[in-house]
Amino acid sequence: MISIDEAQSRILERTWTKGAVRVPTSRAVGAALAAGVASDVDSPPHDKSLLDGYAIVSADVRGGAVELRVIAEIAAGVVPQCEVRSGSAAQIMTGAPLPRGADAVVMLEHTTRLEYPDAPRIRVDVDRVAAGDGIMRRGTSIQRGTCVLNAGHVVRPIDVGLLCEVGHTQVDVTGPVHVAVLATGNELVPAEQIPGAGMIRNSNGPMLRALARDLLCQVTDLGICGDEIGALQRSIRRGLGNDVLLLSGGVSAGVLDLVPKVLEDLGVERVFHKVHLKPGKPLWFGVCHAGSSRTLVFGLPGNPVGCLVCFELFVGPALRKLRGLGTVTPAIRSATLADGYCHRSDRPTYVPAVASHLEDHRLVAVPLAWAGSADQRAVGAANCLVLFPAGERVFAAGDQVPLLLLGPIPPAG
Amino acid sequence: MISIDEAQSRILERTWTKGAVRVPTSRAVGAALAAGVASDVDSPPHDKSLLDGYAIVSADVRGGAVELRVIAEIAAGVVPQCEVRSGSAAQIMTGAPLPRGADAVVMLEHTTRLEYPDAPRIRVDVDRVAAGDGIMRRGTSIQRGTCVLNAGHVVRPIDVGLLCEVGHTQVDVTGPVHVAVLATGNELVPAEQIPGAGMIRNSNGPMLRALARDLLCQVTDLGICGDEIGALQRSIRRGLGNDVLLLSGGVSAGVLDLVPKVLEDLGVERVFHKVHLKPGKPLWFGVCHAGSSRTLVFGLPGNPVGCLVCFELFVGPALRKLRGLGTVTPAIRSATLADGYCHRSDRPTYVPAVASHLEDHRLVAVPLAWAGSADQRAVGAANCLVLFPAGERVFAAGDQVPLLLLGPIPPAG
Repeated sequence: MISIDEAQSRILERTWTKGAVRVPTSRAVGAALAAGVASDVDSPPHDKSLLDGYAIVSADVRGGAVELRVIAEIAAGVVPQCEVRSGSAAQIMTGAPLPRGADAVVMLEHTTRLEYPDAPRIRVDVDRVAAGDGIMRRGTSIQRGTCVLNAGHVVRPIDVGLLCEVGHTQVDVTGPVHVAVLATGNELVPAEQIPGAGMIRNSNGPMLRALARDLLCQVTDLGICGDEIGALQRSIRRGLGNDVLLLSGGVSAGVLDLVPKVLEDLGVERVFHKVHLKPGKPLWFGVCHAGSSRTLVFGLPGNPVGCLVCFELFVGPALRKLRGLGTVTPAIRSATLADGYCHRSDRPTYVPAVASHLEDHRLVAVPLAWAGSADQRAVGAANCLVLFPAGERVFAAGDQVPLLLLGPIPPAG
Repeated sequence: MISIDEAQSRILERTWTKGAVRVPTSRAVGAALAAGVASDVDSPPHDKSLLDGYAIVSADVRGGAVELRVIAEIAAGVVPQCEVRSGSAAQIMTGAPLPRGADAVVMLEHTTRLEYPDAPRIRVDVDRVAAGDGIMRRGTSIQRGTCVLNAGHVVRPIDVGLLCEVGHTQVDVTGPVHVAVLATGNELVPAEQIPGAGMIRNSNGPMLRALARDLLCQVTDLGICGDEIGALQRSIRRGLGNDVLLLSGGVSAGVLDLVPKVLEDLGVERVFHKVHLKPGKPLWFGVCHAGSSRTLVFGLPGNPVGCLVCFELFVGPALRKLRGLGTVTPAIRSATLADGYCHRSDRPTYVPAVASHLEDHRLVAVPLAWAGSADQRAVGAANCLVLFPAGERVFAAGDQVPLLLLGPIPPAG
């Protein structure tokens, strides 16, 4: 049996990163840019006004109230035809191009409008205006050709505006990753049904699909397959065209645990079977090569908490690497145990727990009452998994333990 | 001009929470449950084996190797017909129902299979088996009727398995929230086009749509509208059927800043105009009542960074409240400035910055070079906004500042 770290390494060694695909920027959120993005424009594209006010010659304002003749009104979106000379001013709106001759904009609130019979004039009510005041020069923010977001950057909603400003309504991102999900076991009925005697609903299939979709994968549902070699072969073959095939169940030591044998018969090369871990020990992992394409195949435990733990520790990192993300293994944080805890297990054990923030953003954790790998209820109440080492040990309140986050952490209180 | 806190309060006072809608559980991820979810089954539904092994009468094993006759083989998904009595055992698979008479399961690895001519037998190789070993009693994890997830719980991918196990392939969630987005300004061209002289691309529209979609809202794109009263009236009317209407541009002091007037002419009740904030001062907020339905109307600044800051501070909280989420205002963290920083402004100012984690998970922040509200490039490089107070002040390295997160924080390196 190999360790958690060794299993992660063997999986990631065999995981590639997908090529680039062009998508509308609006659908690129969450994806990694496959190439840097360069601007096709200067920003701003012209010397522009930062204010609603008057474009003037700054040298005209030198102490005392100066009066200027208003020669034009310039809105955003027009090309000013006028030229501002000493003694004149052009009314200008925020964002509008600066007219020739002007070298500053004085804000509306610092002027008084004077209506003369012949032409409107303003009085400037401040003592001094410096060249450059109230204006932003062409290209101050971005110069044409500049790279504004690097390859590997994961597109956030807030980046969509910048990408559109610089002319990229489509971008090249890494992906997509195709994942197929197959639940196995004679005892399973579709989650929509009421299970008969001895039966349970298929919950791993929907959970695995939700986890993979949350990591922005394209998911194919292969449904449920009973513990029968021919049927398993047919279902598994359908999954081998994907980047990743996730199976649940059929990987333990039981008479009907046929999944490893069927996978190996279909030419899936076994990399390892069983990990020194609780829950999640029965994990099977292999790779199927078909021409130039490969499929990573995970035989996950049928017990739902073991299935979840294996997804978090092993499948998630592979999916993130396929998607070109920089950090692929889950973040392990350190937390303080709120109370004492007795732990005994022959393997490192992930126990569902509730973590909350102390005021200084350190974490405190409370392991939940938990009946083991089949007890999915504890998962609904948990926001993390606390890792206890193999062996028997009494932990005291205040001891530090590593934890793996499963969801948002509330503030303590 | 009102403060940021006052503006948030006035908005949230006027924001309701949407009713319930039934959705497939696979599409409920991210949504708040509108009602608690009760189980329609016991879990496990029967006394079940936790192991691959043999179901036995525990009293048969009392020191020394005991031999037992194997009377049946029980797989998961079947109802056992046999009864285990003293001296006999039934082979059983993980998850399978315990047969009558048996009160423990001994694991396969703790037995030796003996093939006799008449019938298979096993030898139990451990000294003691306690009643209850290797089995999980019916209802240990969940009893029928128990609430497994409370109203208000935000569904995570890891909850989908639990929801399916307890018979909820559909759930009632709060929402959906309908948001319409309209960009205004004569200077705007669609982001797909190359802007002519004096023009810029519409970047606020796509950014606002991405931000609202990221908060799982249903978004309608109303496109771009020029600064013309009739056209604005028509476009705005189309938006008033939604829960929220987001406008960008046209809310400053310019001659063509027509949005507040058009909104009020259309019967949108003004709640406030302008916030003591930089960037984002021109924000206009109002409510439109039409029969029993209401629309929250945000007139956001046209400058992209002001538009973003107003979304984060004011629109996001309203959308989260509409969606029934527990925490609606953005988390404000405290960070240490990495270097000295000179700040001067007449208003509290949010400056794009890069935050990273120290090893103890405290945050350190570096404000970015930034040319102000129109400089969207800094947003692409930032993962947070640092808040500096109004006034003039020289901050020293090590000073604490509040910050608002915009994206994931990398570990310090």
